[in-house]
Amino acid sequence: MSQLKIGFIGLGYMGRPMCHNLIKAGFGVTVWNRSRPGIEFARSHGAVEASSAKEVAAASDIVVTMVKHGGDTAEVALGHNGLLSGARPGMILIDMSTIAPAEARVIAVRLKEGGVLMLDAPVSGSTPRAEAGTLSIMVGGPTEAYERALPVLQSMGSSIVHVGEENGAGQGAKLCNQVLVLVNMLSTVEALTLGAGLGLDVGRVYEAVKDGAGGSWQFENLGARLLQGDIEPGGTVETVQKDLDILMTQAGELHMTLPATSMVQQLYNAVEAAGMGKKGHQALAAAYERLTGVRIADHVST
Amino acid sequence: MSQLKIGFIGLGYMGRPMCHNLIKAGFGVTVWNRSRPGIEFARSHGAVEASSAKEVAAASDIVVTMVKHGGDTAEVALGHNGLLSGARPGMILIDMSTIAPAEARVIAVRLKEGGVLMLDAPVSGSTPRAEAGTLSIMVGGPTEAYERALPVLQSMGSSIVHVGEENGAGQGAKLCNQVLVLVNMLSTVEALTLGAGLGLDVGRVYEAVKDGAGGSWQFENLGARLLQGDIEPGGTVETVQKDLDILMTQAGELHMTLPATSMVQQLYNAVEAAGMGKKGHQALAAAYERLTGVRIADHVST
Repeated sequence: MSQLKIGFIGLGYMGRPMCHNLIKAGFGVTVWNRSRPGIEFARSHGAVEASSAKEVAAASDIVVTMVKHGGDTAEVALGHNGLLSGARPGMILIDMSTIAPAEARVIAVRLKEGGVLMLDAPVSGSTPRAEAGTLSIMVGGPTEAYERALPVLQSMGSSIVHVGEENGAGQGAKLCNQVLVLVNMLSTVEALTLGAGLGLDVGRVYEAVKDGAGGSWQFENLGARLLQGDIEPGGTVETVQKDLDILMTQAGELHMTLPATSMVQQLYNAVEAAGMGKKGHQALAAAYERLTGVRIADHVST
Repeated sequence: MSQLKIGFIGLGYMGRPMCHNLIKAGFGVTVWNRSRPGIEFARSHGAVEASSAKEVAAASDIVVTMVKHGGDTAEVALGHNGLLSGARPGMILIDMSTIAPAEARVIAVRLKEGGVLMLDAPVSGSTPRAEAGTLSIMVGGPTEAYERALPVLQSMGSSIVHVGEENGAGQGAKLCNQVLVLVNMLSTVEALTLGAGLGLDVGRVYEAVKDGAGGSWQFENLGARLLQGDIEPGGTVETVQKDLDILMTQAGELHMTLPATSMVQQLYNAVEAAGMGKKGHQALAAAYERLTGVRIADHVST
């Protein structure tokens, strides 16, 4: 049993299994959440409930946040009854939400003024990997905090890389990861739609190409779902659009051209126009279905 | 030692190691090639030289072609002193070149009239995998021919999928594979350029994301080369442009929208405009370098 006392805030579909893995690893965990179901989940697995972020901080050496928006992280960290108001000097905040690198830097500066160190540590991998404790975690922030927090991160992820000592470096790597995820999703749907349009059995095409030079995690995993006509989430189109907003804002600030990512964003707008914002991000195929009249799952015979 | 007698035509940078693997597998191999160096290579490893494609056919049960263009396959198969003029009924042609599906179908029909069966069997994987005998091979054509040719294919590849009984099905799968390869290359250069533009150590970014949901064969292998500033081929930009021509012609014939592939083609035009047509296909990064002023390899410190 570890002596480190952990706080956890943000018990959504990702936060719950991550918190559960901390409890299974033997950490004492104190939780707070905006809504009851997340709290009830964590209590049923042995977590202690607090009445505010401030109370979580007062009970914890390290606090993990897994919330939706940069504004949520700032509110939980710096707002009324927030973490900073209850933290002892030396506390570490590990923000595992996906937020803009610049937001992460600003929050870190404010926390440091109060003696709290921050790591920005966004994750890649959806719910199954959160449950298995095999997330990829990209970390930015001071080495001192990284080294103290490592056992906590290791309870939730299997690939943990300290990208840089600057706060925001983890979020920057996450942006690069999202470019890869989303543009590889684009290649997946474009290739499978082409195969279907050519009149091929796309199940055979999938087998023929998945282990070759065109292979990717997206193709292997989400491509397989598309063969079944399965567009349930995983990560939703709406969450993807949030990431794309961060990406394109960042690109604008850097005066950086991201043509492929921009195309993906436009195609996801079409997916949302089709009323599929709550579907999984493989619903990108729906944009191609509209453009081509071809549905991938109609061309699988094996 | 197998009793099957094999012919091999097209001893370029891919054909040579493929032919060598057939010899190593114990097949007797007769070769012909347009230029001498390929013939000398094959002879030095034990192949017998013929003076024409016709002579190769006369000496062989199965002939493999690995040439550059659809027109080359047609010339070798159907032209003056071509395979058809020397083949015994029941001979099988395995065309492993990348050509348009429609061209493969037309050649197969003409060969069948002369009693020759054809498989279109393009490959994925560049020279190292050709040397290791671990190519991915996508096969279209009659099951009877596929079953007889399988031991030959197994000497050159480790993933062999019979995509369909129609000729052109292998070439169709190859087109899907090329969409994946090229658009995953696009995601690789866009993501690494973004990381460099954010001021991150892209070596760390690479480590942080390569095994996650953004991972791909292109990122892992060609991304690693870009970190070293290595843009030597592998497959060249010029070869990629040939594949893109086939793809976009096919898309036009099908009235199929391939927006990502089209963008890749436009960016490769810029790479050729920069005089880099003979470089490897990861030289796509040069287009981003021009658009952003950021060179990936300048941002690697680990």
